[in-house]
Amino acid sequence: MFDYKLLSALAAVIEQAGFERAAQVLGLSQSAISQRIKLLEARVGQPVLVRANPPSPTDVGRRLLNHVQQVRLLERDLQSQVPALDEEGMPERLRIALNADSLATWWAAAAGEFCADQQVLLDLVVEDQEVGLKRMRAGEVAACLCGSERPVAGARSLLLGAMRYRALASPAFMARYFPSGFDAGRLSRTPALVFGPDDFLQHRYLASLGIEDGFLHHLCPSSEGFLRMTEAGLGWGLVPELQVRDQLASGRLVEISADKPIDVPLYWHHWRNGGQLLGQLTEHLRLTAGQWLVPL
Amino acid sequence: MFDYKLLSALAAVIEQAGFERAAQVLGLSQSAISQRIKLLEARVGQPVLVRANPPSPTDVGRRLLNHVQQVRLLERDLQSQVPALDEEGMPERLRIALNADSLATWWAAAAGEFCADQQVLLDLVVEDQEVGLKRMRAGEVAACLCGSERPVAGARSLLLGAMRYRALASPAFMARYFPSGFDAGRLSRTPALVFGPDDFLQHRYLASLGIEDGFLHHLCPSSEGFLRMTEAGLGWGLVPELQVRDQLASGRLVEISADKPIDVPLYWHHWRNGGQLLGQLTEHLRLTAGQWLVPL
Repeated sequence: MFDYKLLSALAAVIEQAGFERAAQVLGLSQSAISQRIKLLEARVGQPVLVRANPPSPTDVGRRLLNHVQQVRLLERDLQSQVPALDEEGMPERLRIALNADSLATWWAAAAGEFCADQQVLLDLVVEDQEVGLKRMRAGEVAACLCGSERPVAGARSLLLGAMRYRALASPAFMARYFPSGFDAGRLSRTPALVFGPDDFLQHRYLASLGIEDGFLHHLCPSSEGFLRMTEAGLGWGLVPELQVRDQLASGRLVEISADKPIDVPLYWHHWRNGGQLLGQLTEHLRLTAGQWLVPL
Repeated sequence: MFDYKLLSALAAVIEQAGFERAAQVLGLSQSAISQRIKLLEARVGQPVLVRANPPSPTDVGRRLLNHVQQVRLLERDLQSQVPALDEEGMPERLRIALNADSLATWWAAAAGEFCADQQVLLDLVVEDQEVGLKRMRAGEVAACLCGSERPVAGARSLLLGAMRYRALASPAFMARYFPSGFDAGRLSRTPALVFGPDDFLQHRYLASLGIEDGFLHHLCPSSEGFLRMTEAGLGWGLVPELQVRDQLASGRLVEISADKPIDVPLYWHHWRNGGQLLGQLTEHLRLTAGQWLVPL
């Protein structure tokens, strides 16, 4: 068998983004952590960590991490049957990558009760889909929620539904830029809001109006900041419907043109051998996500 | 004089995080962009870019970017006096690093009208303070809003006020973990919410109660996700007061213990020679921030 003291040290250094915090979490000295990593490297015959700030795993380090995370999930299954094995009585941690808009809207409502009941602690990572799946492949996360269907090797993907986005602006924005009513031709000359270089929703919306040119835009990589900037009249943008029910009802935000929502599918990627807990969470999301997501 | 065609190409590749998008933005072919970067490298005698995905500047590249951004701000000042110089009639872009909680709360209200009136487009970057100041030093951003007072070389810092955080949880969370009333000794054994490895607010709060041990926690690197998870009863955490007025009024969230806010100072870092626009924005923030921030 592997020496899991060494592997746990590696996992802690990566998960805690440093030797000092890893030592704190494991209740060890920093030099004890260093010793364990060195011993692990001596055994595998090559470095497992790139000593940068924060440290990152080498290729072989990643494979070891992947293994640790799978073993942890499997151990958890066993512990539910053999509670005495659970040395520390600590809740399990589940590391999950997800898109910013899900985290800002429905994720907590969907996962909250499950995690409280199951005593699961979440390590959430906000990533766009490419990076999220890369982290999944690297074994850094147990699951990933993103817009891409294709699973990585060893994982499954499940369509949970779609998030509905609406093109919105403040009444003051509309009055400033469209004093005599909405005009699609002028839209690309008014400032848009864009989440980041991988956010093409505004491009898609303009394309749906027949506009393929570039357009003026602010960049705002924060779901709530995006909404605040829309409310403040800085620009127009595609916002999850879930996030703006109050604003639409009160008229603080309005749709810039007729009903033209964009639906973005969301897939739940999870390891095939992820253990019972991940399987239960997957089943829970499958059953409940329809409360917030629309069918595709 | 430098060849600003070459420097603009470098700036576009970094700002757009790739050659393809840089080409789109500048209305050039991708090979024209590559040519310009190569020519620039031939002139300075060393690489200006690390060809990764996304590309990043070398040390000398960073110095060139810093220069480009300063020149742009100075050009803008001149253009307000000599409008004919403004070839493209495009609004100016201002790249600013700020903390996630400011962007999720008061930033848009404070900066919105100014940017709309001045036709400024914002490139916002969410960073914790260390990385924000590093980007400032590297010339990647014109200003930075963060908790650290010490300015980088060539910049000034201005205290705008403090964000007030309160330790909150849902009534269901309190009923589950503190059925017979709040007990500071038990708090570290209930799950907390932590924004990320650099968020020590929960540690500070526990320390103020005399608790110095480790504690259970979820990691949730999203301001709005953090709030949603608190509402869903997943954990307790320090939340900006600005973000939860409704929740506190309606009782959806409650203070976990007596009135014990934590005030976090916010400093505005800006270049000393940042030009008139940056100076005006600085003055605007100095005059208005008190509407949202508390005095320190």
